Amino acid sequence: MTRPGEFEVIRKYFAPLAQSLPGALDLTDDAAILNVPKGRELVVTSDALVSGVHFLADDPPADIAAKALRVNVSDLASMGAEPLAYTLAVAFSDNVDEDWLRAFAGGLERDQIEFGIALIGGDTVATPGPLTLSICAFGSVPKGLALRRGGAQPGDSLFVSGTIGDATLGLAVLTGELDGVDTAFQDELVGRYRRPTPRRALGIELIGLATSAIDVSDGLVADLGHICDVSGVGATIDAGRVPLSAAARAVLDARRTGIERLLCGGDDYELLFSAPANNREKVARVAAQAEVEVSEIGRIGESKGEVCVVGEDGRSIEIGDAGFTHF
Amino acid sequence: MTRPGEFEVIRKYFAPLAQSLPGALDLTDDAAILNVPKGRELVVTSDALVSGVHFLADDPPADIAAKALRVNVSDLASMGAEPLAYTLAVAFSDNVDEDWLRAFAGGLERDQIEFGIALIGGDTVATPGPLTLSICAFGSVPKGLALRRGGAQPGDSLFVSGTIGDATLGLAVLTGELDGVDTAFQDELVGRYRRPTPRRALGIELIGLATSAIDVSDGLVADLGHICDVSGVGATIDAGRVPLSAAARAVLDARRTGIERLLCGGDDYELLFSAPANNREKVARVAAQAEVEVSEIGRIGESKGEVCVVGEDGRSIEIGDAGFTHF
Repeated sequence: MTRPGEFEVIRKYFAPLAQSLPGALDLTDDAAILNVPKGRELVVTSDALVSGVHFLADDPPADIAAKALRVNVSDLASMGAEPLAYTLAVAFSDNVDEDWLRAFAGGLERDQIEFGIALIGGDTVATPGPLTLSICAFGSVPKGLALRRGGAQPGDSLFVSGTIGDATLGLAVLTGELDGVDTAFQDELVGRYRRPTPRRALGIELIGLATSAIDVSDGLVADLGHICDVSGVGATIDAGRVPLSAAARAVLDARRTGIERLLCGGDDYELLFSAPANNREKVARVAAQAEVEVSEIGRIGESKGEVCVVGEDGRSIEIGDAGFTHF
Repeated sequence: MTRPGEFEVIRKYFAPLAQSLPGALDLTDDAAILNVPKGRELVVTSDALVSGVHFLADDPPADIAAKALRVNVSDLASMGAEPLAYTLAVAFSDNVDEDWLRAFAGGLERDQIEFGIALIGGDTVATPGPLTLSICAFGSVPKGLALRRGGAQPGDSLFVSGTIGDATLGLAVLTGELDGVDTAFQDELVGRYRRPTPRRALGIELIGLATSAIDVSDGLVADLGHICDVSGVGATIDAGRVPLSAAARAVLDARRTGIERLLCGGDDYELLFSAPANNREKVARVAAQAEVEVSEIGRIGESKGEVCVVGEDGRSIEIGDAGFTHF
């Protein structure tokens, strides 16, 4: 094993990531001190990733770092929170060496800058099992104004950022299922699986405008189901209005996948949200400010908990047990 | 597999643990909202535990829960923080079934009450590897007054709570190394390994009194080394004044272990702290208030980073590479 010891790993690779936060105490203490800006409250989220389950063991270390951090930043975005800090608990498997660590820390560093977040603490342990990463991320929102899942109202319009279904196709590329598809498209889809783009700026702009919000991690239909459950409403998706990338469109047109799979695939980390229908121009404005495409894809209805998907022919599309559960 | 699905596990076993905190949003949202009491600041710590590394796979689930929570509460205690909330990220191995989950959640519930802390969020995933738990715990301290590792001054007295070395002997009992030792003693030592007692009340009382503090997780000598490194001082331990339990004393007297091992063994989760020598009566008073024994075991000196251990005969005891590192 060419990995240095625990304290050396922390000093060499992780402490530099904590320099911008004085409360991180250079990672030399038992805990860190986190100050929440005045008039704001703390938003806390936690996501764990296991090698072979949430990413592939031979994914580039910088991409693994990016994914671990980004899925957490995405949760903050779905609450409208401005990122502040994160802790990282890593259980290292035997095959993690110094090159891997350097690339992993480099990936974190780049993303810290991009998302305005810094390391504040954590833990490093060894595991005989697969590499396991657990991040707890902190953000802040104006007091009482966090975006929530529970506020969708019948009549609200339903919006989603970016494009849907790319990540699940990216995983299909990596497992060899989409061999033969244009390689530029393949690369694009893999990139979407490995390096999701949390919609941080959009989430912040949606405060006071969206009535509910969630990030698409389990899949569009399943995550809309979560909004409906908590809000006590139903919803309809117009499948023809769900935004698809050129790559996903090509895969669909070549009949290498069905639309159901795109609507149910996880890991896109786009923002799905509802807003009063008469606010759609405001939504378009904040989307432009946040420099992200936002599409109106359906509406909130009365029928509690029910998510319907309507195809371009006006017929409803059957969706089976939708969405990704983690076991 | 007789374990229910992810959402069912959260709803059935974890959501009840989050009821007392409105900001936990019943674990139904992407993140939680945490409010820090006025005039106080947030303390954040994170500890990960891997089955077979930090606890044994067949340890009772309630003890595993207790250990995971307590090592984090201990980190809060070493900063003088009042516990507030915690997130729990669990990677479940295949052999975790519903009975295990019930007992595990029960263990968390009992400890939540004991330490005044509640679940606020987390994540549940599956792993092909060993059960892995990652807790991020939050506490609060009066602004600017957190206990730190870095304030020890030459001339300060050195104190430790409870007794030292029991946890490492408890592990030795579990691995069969101490067969033949009185079974009541064996049970006591195992209990100390499986269910450490974080010194929450003592930590809170030490604010404004201790010049440095740490919890003994890597081992007394190694953790004193951490204080010395960060404070830029040295220290001397009088081995004869280090408090030992009757059980540890019996093992020592029977020559089944040496004192070095007790001084270097990890996992005791006692508080090690320095305070001005003329404050020893105050220390005794707050220890009595916190209902925990505190022993004066040495002093802080000038020689930077050097930790000396002096035996009862006045000769220095050689300590090798002291302390537990996690890989």
